[in-house]
Amino acid sequence: MPRFKLTIEYDGTAFVGWQRQDNGMSVQEALETAVERYCQIKGQVFGAGRTDAGVHALAQVAHVDLPRNDRPEVVANALNAHLRPHLISVLKAEVVDEEFHARFSALERGYEYRILNRRAPAALEAGKVWWIPAPLNADAMHDAAQALVGKHDFTTFRAAECQAESPVKTIDAITITRQAEMIVLTTRARSFLHHQVRNIVGTLRTVGEGKWSARDVARALDARDRAAGGQTAPPTGLYLTHVKYHA
Amino acid sequence: MPRFKLTIEYDGTAFVGWQRQDNGMSVQEALETAVERYCQIKGQVFGAGRTDAGVHALAQVAHVDLPRNDRPEVVANALNAHLRPHLISVLKAEVVDEEFHARFSALERGYEYRILNRRAPAALEAGKVWWIPAPLNADAMHDAAQALVGKHDFTTFRAAECQAESPVKTIDAITITRQAEMIVLTTRARSFLHHQVRNIVGTLRTVGEGKWSARDVARALDARDRAAGGQTAPPTGLYLTHVKYHA
Repeated sequence: MPRFKLTIEYDGTAFVGWQRQDNGMSVQEALETAVERYCQIKGQVFGAGRTDAGVHALAQVAHVDLPRNDRPEVVANALNAHLRPHLISVLKAEVVDEEFHARFSALERGYEYRILNRRAPAALEAGKVWWIPAPLNADAMHDAAQALVGKHDFTTFRAAECQAESPVKTIDAITITRQAEMIVLTTRARSFLHHQVRNIVGTLRTVGEGKWSARDVARALDARDRAAGGQTAPPTGLYLTHVKYHA
Repeated sequence: MPRFKLTIEYDGTAFVGWQRQDNGMSVQEALETAVERYCQIKGQVFGAGRTDAGVHALAQVAHVDLPRNDRPEVVANALNAHLRPHLISVLKAEVVDEEFHARFSALERGYEYRILNRRAPAALEAGKVWWIPAPLNADAMHDAAQALVGKHDFTTFRAAECQAESPVKTIDAITITRQAEMIVLTTRARSFLHHQVRNIVGTLRTVGEGKWSARDVARALDARDRAAGGQTAPPTGLYLTHVKYHA
């Protein structure tokens, strides 16, 4: 059975997250149902990033083995047809060798977090941003975030339910920029802890508000204690933007 | 009673359009209900553009007379609080003199139309674009659109239900550009006929597909016959982007 790599966009609003769960529709279940309708097999779809409920993807990557030699474009179109009306779209399908694993072969994952920073609530961007009405200093947030770049024990930014063996991760970059009313954080790492990006964003918010300095963020990291960090930012502003593999 | 000019963003998906109607919730009714809750009066809210069901606004303009001398920021915040959970957001409120009329004082209206032009269906942009999977030539669409700029009889691009006295309008500009998978048309005029932008977009689509030439568009315009034009593009891709007034 040929293995297909799928690049997938989705609006996470209506899903319980990437991973199959008993309490509602997941992106994985929707994809596996589409595979079943297309190929009449119960195929498992493996994703690179287990996004939470409400988290979106511009380019999640998954793989699945299919009992058909259809051209990749045919696979993408067929899955898209069977995915309706779910807001999941297969942007691209590619044949990969059987050593490719969407999760374990991934070299880098990228996320973006969007904050709508204006007095007026979100309308067109509702469910796609974190609305923060108080003015934030994006430059101060960017500067403070640099203390988190590199290899650290990220216990302060790790969800209690996190299943990773170690709290040590290496963040390759964090950039925070403002474009008019939108503040966008982008970050990349080989992998992230559960809620790591959202906990970082919630902590940087206090810097943006002027309540915390860059030094406070560095101190929170050093504390290795979730209670030393800021709130968990809501899932609505988070996007999985890319997953990198060996060419 | 001071008159307030309101600049308003909305997601048109859930509304029957700007104008009050018996068959569902309109943006106007939602705003008037918010005014009533805020000021305990049945105030009428006048809008600059009567957008159709499903059409969005980045910056619709309206005016309303309120029996309160609250600061404009207070008015905007109060209306936003009472507007929830509708996806309507008052971006700005300003005091204007009583000669200001959102509709009749408008000097120019701007619209934008977004086409998602890729094989994969819309997911994150669902309800906010027109998805066209076949590749379109945006440059050819732009060139053909120039025949529509200027003062013309736009009967070919006018809805049967259009209530304007004359089909003659002056389009000041039409620009069509592509940014990756998104083709964006922007246009501005003092005013537009009912469905004019959507009928123009539907016609230009045939140019983008290579079925029609620029000359065919000019001929369709000259025919002054709705049947000579292309289909009406769906409302989902249309945004009212601005309304201009004397300073």
